[in-house]
Amino acid sequence: MAKITTRAENYSEWYNQLVQQAEMAENSSVRWCMVIKPYGFAIWENIKDVLDKMFKNTWHQNAAFPLLIPKSFFTKEASHVAWFAKECAVVTHYRLKNDPNWKWIIVDPEAKLEEELIIRPTSETIIWDSYKRWINSYRDLPILVNQWANVMRWEMRTRMFLRTAEIFWQEWHTAHATAQEANEEALRMLDVYRDFAENFLAISPVTWKKPAHDRFAWAVETYTYEPMMQDFKALQAWTSHFLWQAFGKAFDVKFTNQNNELEYVRWTSWWCSTRMVGWIIMAHGDDNGLVLPPLLAPYHVAIVPIFKNQEDLNDIMNFLKPLIEKMDNASLDAHSKYIKDTIKVKYKIDSDTQKTPGRKFSEYEMKGFPLRVTVWKRDLENWQVEVFNRITEEKTMMRLDDLVENLEDILLKQQKDLYEKNKAFREANTYYVNTYDEFKEKIEKWFIFAHWDWTAESAEKIQEETKATIRCIPNEWFVKQNDEWVDMISWKPSVWRVLFAKSY
Amino acid sequence: MAKITTRAENYSEWYNQLVQQAEMAENSSVRWCMVIKPYGFAIWENIKDVLDKMFKNTWHQNAAFPLLIPKSFFTKEASHVAWFAKECAVVTHYRLKNDPNWKWIIVDPEAKLEEELIIRPTSETIIWDSYKRWINSYRDLPILVNQWANVMRWEMRTRMFLRTAEIFWQEWHTAHATAQEANEEALRMLDVYRDFAENFLAISPVTWKKPAHDRFAWAVETYTYEPMMQDFKALQAWTSHFLWQAFGKAFDVKFTNQNNELEYVRWTSWWCSTRMVGWIIMAHGDDNGLVLPPLLAPYHVAIVPIFKNQEDLNDIMNFLKPLIEKMDNASLDAHSKYIKDTIKVKYKIDSDTQKTPGRKFSEYEMKGFPLRVTVWKRDLENWQVEVFNRITEEKTMMRLDDLVENLEDILLKQQKDLYEKNKAFREANTYYVNTYDEFKEKIEKWFIFAHWDWTAESAEKIQEETKATIRCIPNEWFVKQNDEWVDMISWKPSVWRVLFAKSY
Repeated sequence: MAKITTRAENYSEWYNQLVQQAEMAENSSVRWCMVIKPYGFAIWENIKDVLDKMFKNTWHQNAAFPLLIPKSFFTKEASHVAWFAKECAVVTHYRLKNDPNWKWIIVDPEAKLEEELIIRPTSETIIWDSYKRWINSYRDLPILVNQWANVMRWEMRTRMFLRTAEIFWQEWHTAHATAQEANEEALRMLDVYRDFAENFLAISPVTWKKPAHDRFAWAVETYTYEPMMQDFKALQAWTSHFLWQAFGKAFDVKFTNQNNELEYVRWTSWWCSTRMVGWIIMAHGDDNGLVLPPLLAPYHVAIVPIFKNQEDLNDIMNFLKPLIEKMDNASLDAHSKYIKDTIKVKYKIDSDTQKTPGRKFSEYEMKGFPLRVTVWKRDLENWQVEVFNRITEEKTMMRLDDLVENLEDILLKQQKDLYEKNKAFREANTYYVNTYDEFKEKIEKWFIFAHWDWTAESAEKIQEETKATIRCIPNEWFVKQNDEWVDMISWKPSVWRVLFAKSY
Repeated sequence: MAKITTRAENYSEWYNQLVQQAEMAENSSVRWCMVIKPYGFAIWENIKDVLDKMFKNTWHQNAAFPLLIPKSFFTKEASHVAWFAKECAVVTHYRLKNDPNWKWIIVDPEAKLEEELIIRPTSETIIWDSYKRWINSYRDLPILVNQWANVMRWEMRTRMFLRTAEIFWQEWHTAHATAQEANEEALRMLDVYRDFAENFLAISPVTWKKPAHDRFAWAVETYTYEPMMQDFKALQAWTSHFLWQAFGKAFDVKFTNQNNELEYVRWTSWWCSTRMVGWIIMAHGDDNGLVLPPLLAPYHVAIVPIFKNQEDLNDIMNFLKPLIEKMDNASLDAHSKYIKDTIKVKYKIDSDTQKTPGRKFSEYEMKGFPLRVTVWKRDLENWQVEVFNRITEEKTMMRLDDLVENLEDILLKQQKDLYEKNKAFREANTYYVNTYDEFKEKIEKWFIFAHWDWTAESAEKIQEETKATIRCIPNEWFVKQNDEWVDMISWKPSVWRVLFAKSY
């Protein structure tokens, strides 16, 4: 297995090579679309499983709405189209036929659709078309429906997991009778995402509101999660929107309230996508490959017996029996505020005779198996094995019975260590600056909390000159209290620091 | 809740009304596409969860391949296109734009794709395009990859869950070094589907081979599962194909075998879809609505307290505490040959004051909740509740502690009863006939096992005259042994009875 480019040499090339070598994904023969290979897809499935349970534990249900959306649906609100729907896949015909002269397949010109259909770039228009049928009275509310779906945007500069034409995501669109209830829903789900980031992804993002000029069209508030990647850039992988009555009005969805009056419905909207796999790679990976939070890893332990002949192998496998038995029955507690579940420990025993141990070692490091257990014949008499911890990179000799006894604790400790590492990295690379000179100097390598006068003009000027944007207006966890000051460039008053960073 | 048309009056109308009234699905504003509503989708999710675990327990992995397939991929093998790909959705453009004069959205004529892209009607062409990159030597085999995906075929006569343009399905495509291994895989997975049908769907289909004239293009064998619906028609919801080297040759996928020689790869292919939800409706439903196998039901128990005021309700809820506590912790053993899992018991307490008890009863019957527990204040002193069994339609008074103690057993017994009922229904409506006259008389209302001379001509003639087709060549479980006879119409020798039926 070839070494990959280091992060220091070329971060972007490091990412691409890691995705390839860890067998996570590959470019397909369809331009702009990727193939998610089994190993990469297993990580996404683990993400989905946990999030889906969290959504269901907060009373959401899944449903499925059509892949194709009539073009006229996009014209209901021009600002909506402007935002996202211009670059998209348009279906115009519904039949192929054999060209009799050329033994070739052609699109049948007679099978032209009366109205073109768009492969959904996002589904609110088609989902609210159903909600309109479902909602008559306050008794039909709330509707808390989520959809796991593939969506498509015609992205020209693609990057696996981060930016591709076809994206796998979850989008939910809730409908509520009152603003208060919609607000509670919004805050609850913001917290669900936070819980998932911290306890499962092992990532500590800066969160809270987007500035007004960067909100989703129609949103009263857009909330965001901005974790720091190892190149000090922010990578946004999910946002949530509180949209009050905008969609209700656009689609004319009213309900009869308890006083028998007609009102427009309130809504919220949320998404997160396969970009989260990109988060994991960029936030945790190192020059030897992927590093995975154990709670989302496809496998937890790689067992590599070192043997010269079948007899050695038999002895080693006999010796390992208590560990195998343990792993067959072990589960990790995946308990957090919104989930109470267990995740089965999975392992791989690699007794392949055609690969060298060294090659196996680098393969499991590349794929980010949290633990690698290596067993030499000579160590059997001392009842010990070598345990390599992918997260701390420590290699230790352990008594087999200690490993058996503490397996779950070791893995859960790794999960915690990885989160602490990520949090410490972000904190160590975050600066509070007060002057624009200092800002320009530090923005290359740090997250910056700086004062801002809340105007789009100042934000644009800073972006023009430094390429940094306001990633979010953080809540009080992140900013120093009683810290009144002025905007760095306009010198107008500011009362709150905001997060500036370069981003993907 | 309005009564639905009975099965006897109009079976097809009964089906449509049931789908609507049980809130399983609805037609969308996109012609030929349906919206699967939360209740219907929950059934599909339960099906998926169990099948996915069975697939993983038999060493399969999931992956994701592109939604769009270049048109040229369909021309690699003309016979393949002829089979399924002619009616399909064709993407020709990739951008919308504002028409400045009309404030309208139009397809940008300048954004025409060089090569049209087809929304996958099935994925073998794009999947084997990847396999070609993945396979070099026998060491890369087998590949056991499955995909849960949406596919699209331009169906003009649609029917919810049975025939729609967009279909949710699972398709797997495996690649093997030897014919023997491919054969083993094929037989194993045939058995996995059987296991699922019998133990989870509670359906007893007739299975085995399709006749040669009805095989999937390129298949050496096509296996099928043909359960009997209550209108005596067969409804095929999954098939499996053993395809040996055909795709390996078409896509030129060779591998180096252990003797260092180049060989074509063998493959198998399988699918099952949301049609299975249609199976459940048509096989088990009755004139009061849906009947669900408990192991796949979204909810297991509906609790309906009958009360006049809040005090009554409090008393009833206090009384029910042991049952609630039980249900919060109860699981059903979902153990079969390929799975060892538990399914959490789910319930709903309906203390709505605006619906009458009668309306609640018909709603839960319509939705097929396996058990309904009704509690009157007057029964509290006897510690008893009324239990309605949706599957046997029996209503009994039970002591609350008996119900608490036996809850899982009652639900698992229902699962078994439903399977036995389905099996008995098929067996009671299956005839072994020897003459064509008898055949023509019985084919309206029965499954017929009759002799056939193995020629397409005889099969076609019978189909022309009776609309019945050969659904499958059953294995020995279904046919009488030592039963040599002649074809009903050609009088040529036959050695094996085949299944004739009308079908969807």
